[in-house]
Amino acid sequence: MQNKNFKRKKVSFPNVKELANGILNGNFPALSKGITLCESKRLEDRKFANELVKECLPHSGNSIRIGITGVPGVGKSTFIESFGIYLIENHSKKVAVLAVDPSSKRSRGSILGDKTRMNQLSVHPNAFIRPSPSSGALGGVTHHSRESIILCEAAGFDTIIVETVGVGQSEIEVKEMTDFFLLLMLAGAGDDLQGIKRGIMEMTDGVLINKADGDNLLNAKRAKREYQSALHLFPPSSSGSTPKVEICSALEEFNLEKAWNLIDDFVTLTTENSYFEKQRQEQLNAWFKKSIQERLNVALFGNERINTYIGNLEKQVSNREISPTEAAEQVFEEFKKSIV
Amino acid sequence: MQNKNFKRKKVSFPNVKELANGILNGNFPALSKGITLCESKRLEDRKFANELVKECLPHSGNSIRIGITGVPGVGKSTFIESFGIYLIENHSKKVAVLAVDPSSKRSRGSILGDKTRMNQLSVHPNAFIRPSPSSGALGGVTHHSRESIILCEAAGFDTIIVETVGVGQSEIEVKEMTDFFLLLMLAGAGDDLQGIKRGIMEMTDGVLINKADGDNLLNAKRAKREYQSALHLFPPSSSGSTPKVEICSALEEFNLEKAWNLIDDFVTLTTENSYFEKQRQEQLNAWFKKSIQERLNVALFGNERINTYIGNLEKQVSNREISPTEAAEQVFEEFKKSIV
Repeated sequence: MQNKNFKRKKVSFPNVKELANGILNGNFPALSKGITLCESKRLEDRKFANELVKECLPHSGNSIRIGITGVPGVGKSTFIESFGIYLIENHSKKVAVLAVDPSSKRSRGSILGDKTRMNQLSVHPNAFIRPSPSSGALGGVTHHSRESIILCEAAGFDTIIVETVGVGQSEIEVKEMTDFFLLLMLAGAGDDLQGIKRGIMEMTDGVLINKADGDNLLNAKRAKREYQSALHLFPPSSSGSTPKVEICSALEEFNLEKAWNLIDDFVTLTTENSYFEKQRQEQLNAWFKKSIQERLNVALFGNERINTYIGNLEKQVSNREISPTEAAEQVFEEFKKSIV
Repeated sequence: MQNKNFKRKKVSFPNVKELANGILNGNFPALSKGITLCESKRLEDRKFANELVKECLPHSGNSIRIGITGVPGVGKSTFIESFGIYLIENHSKKVAVLAVDPSSKRSRGSILGDKTRMNQLSVHPNAFIRPSPSSGALGGVTHHSRESIILCEAAGFDTIIVETVGVGQSEIEVKEMTDFFLLLMLAGAGDDLQGIKRGIMEMTDGVLINKADGDNLLNAKRAKREYQSALHLFPPSSSGSTPKVEICSALEEFNLEKAWNLIDDFVTLTTENSYFEKQRQEQLNAWFKKSIQERLNVALFGNERINTYIGNLEKQVSNREISPTEAAEQVFEEFKKSIV
C-alpha cells in the first residue's frame, strides 16, 4: 500500500471502517490490530481508537465478563487453560482472555506474557488470547482493557476472562470492569492468604480452591468449610448473591462444572433481580467519570514543569511548612497557566 | 471591636495571628472560632483558614488520632463519653472529639449533633467536643476535618477521637486521617453486620464489642471468639499488628482499660517499627494529592455549564453512543475553554 518510490517510512493511518468490519466478522487479525490501536501510546492513534470503539460499542455487551485473581502459584494459567477449554467444549462458548496490568512494569509471572503455557487454548479457533499490554497506554492505565473487552464482544466472544496480575490496583480495576469476580485460592490453613491484599476477600463473588487433588483434597475440603463460614461474616453484597466456595483441580479437570455453576448461578440470579444490567450501567458511568479524572491527570502530571512544582511542594507538605489544601491551591494556579 | 456608629453589618476579617495565639494557648473559644473558619463556605475565608493552618502546623502531630465507627445503636455516644472521661481521669489525657460527615445532609443520629448526650465529657475542662460540621465546606468535603485535627493538636489535645457518621465514604475518610481505626460492634450472631459496609472489617485496627453487660455478657464473649478467628483469616495489615477483639460495656464502664490497651499496644508497636510515622507521612501526602484532585473537581463540577455538558454526555455513554474515553476528551476540551 505504500509508495515504493518513497524511501522514508510513511506513517500509515488505519482504516477504521475496514478494521471495524473485520472485527464484527470475527476476524482474529483485525481484532488484534484493533486492540493494538487502543493500546497505542501514539497521540495520533487515540482519535482512530475512539472511532473504532464507537463503531464496536453498539455490538458489545452480549457476554459474561469474568474477573480472575489469585496469588502467584495458585495456578491461574492452568485454570484458565482448563476452564476455557471446558467452556468451549461443554457450553459452546467463545472465550477471550485478557490481562490487566496497571503497573509501570511488564507483568512478571503472568500466564499471558507466556502464551506457550496455554497450549490448547491458544490455538483453539473459539478462543482468543491477548497477552499483557505494555504499560502506559494513552488515556489512562486501563482504558484500553475496557476497550479490548468491547472489541472482543463485537467480534462475537461471549465469555471474556480478565486476569489480574495482582500488582498495584489491578484487582480493583478488574472488579470494576467485570460482572463476576472470582478469587482463586489454595488450601493451607490461612498461610496462602499472606499474598492476598486486604479487601480482596470482600470484593469476590465466588471463591475457588484450586489444586484440590491427591494429598491436598482433604485440605481443600476443610478450607472450603472455613472460608464459607468466614464469608458469612461479611456484610451481604448488593448483588443479592452470597459468595460461595468450591474446590476444583484445574490440572485434573476436576469440578470445572462446579466452577461454572458458581458463575452461571450468579448470572441467572442477577439477571432476574436486574443487578447484572445495573452494575454494567454503573461501571460504564464510573468509567466515564474516571476517564475525566485521568484526562485531567494526564494534563497535570504529564506536564514536566508542574510535576517539578508538585515535587517541591510535596517536600514542604512533608516538613509541615505548608498545608496540603494551600499547596493544592498553588498547584491549581500553576495548572491554569499551563493549559491556557 | 466593630465600629458602633456603623449600622450595616461589616464583614469582619479574622485576625489570624491573634486566633493562632489563642489556639496555641489552649483557648477554647479561639479553637472553636478557628474550626469555624476552616469550615466556612465563604471563598474569602479560605485564605485566612490556610494561614491559620500554616501557623498551627508546626505545633501539630503530638497526639494519638483514633477513628471510631459502628452502626447506629452500637452505643458510640455512650462509649465516647465513658472512654473520654476514663482517658482524662486515668491517663491524664486531653481529649478532643470530632465528627466527619462527608454527606450532603447533616448527620442524623450522630451523638455529636446532640451534645446533651455527652453530659460529663462536654463540660470537662480537658475535653473539647465539636459537633458535625455543616456540609459543603470549601476545598473538599473533609479537608476541614483534617484541619480541625491540626488545630486541636496545636491547642494541646493529645487524644483526638474522630467519629464517623457511617454515611457515604465517611469510614474511609476517617481511616485516612487517623492512626488507629476502631470498630465498635454488638454481639448477636452476625446479624449486626448487616449495617456495616463491606470492607470495613478489613480496615480496622481493633474491634470492640460493646454492651457486654447483663444478659448479653455471654453473647459478647462468644462473639469475641468468632470475630477473633475471622480476623485471622484476613491478610496481615502493613502495620505489623494483628487486629484484636475485646469486649466492653460503656454503660457500666467495664473493660475500658482493655479498650485503651488495644490502642496503646498498637501505638507502642507501630512507634517501634516506624509504621506510625510512616502512615502519618503517607496520609499527609495523600491529603495533598487528594486536595489537588478536589481542587480540579471544584473547578470542573462547580461550573454549571460543564455540569450540563457532562450530564448530556452521560446519557450518550449510557446509550452506548459514545465511548467514555472519547466523552472525557470532549469534557476536557470544554474545561479548558472554561478556565481560560
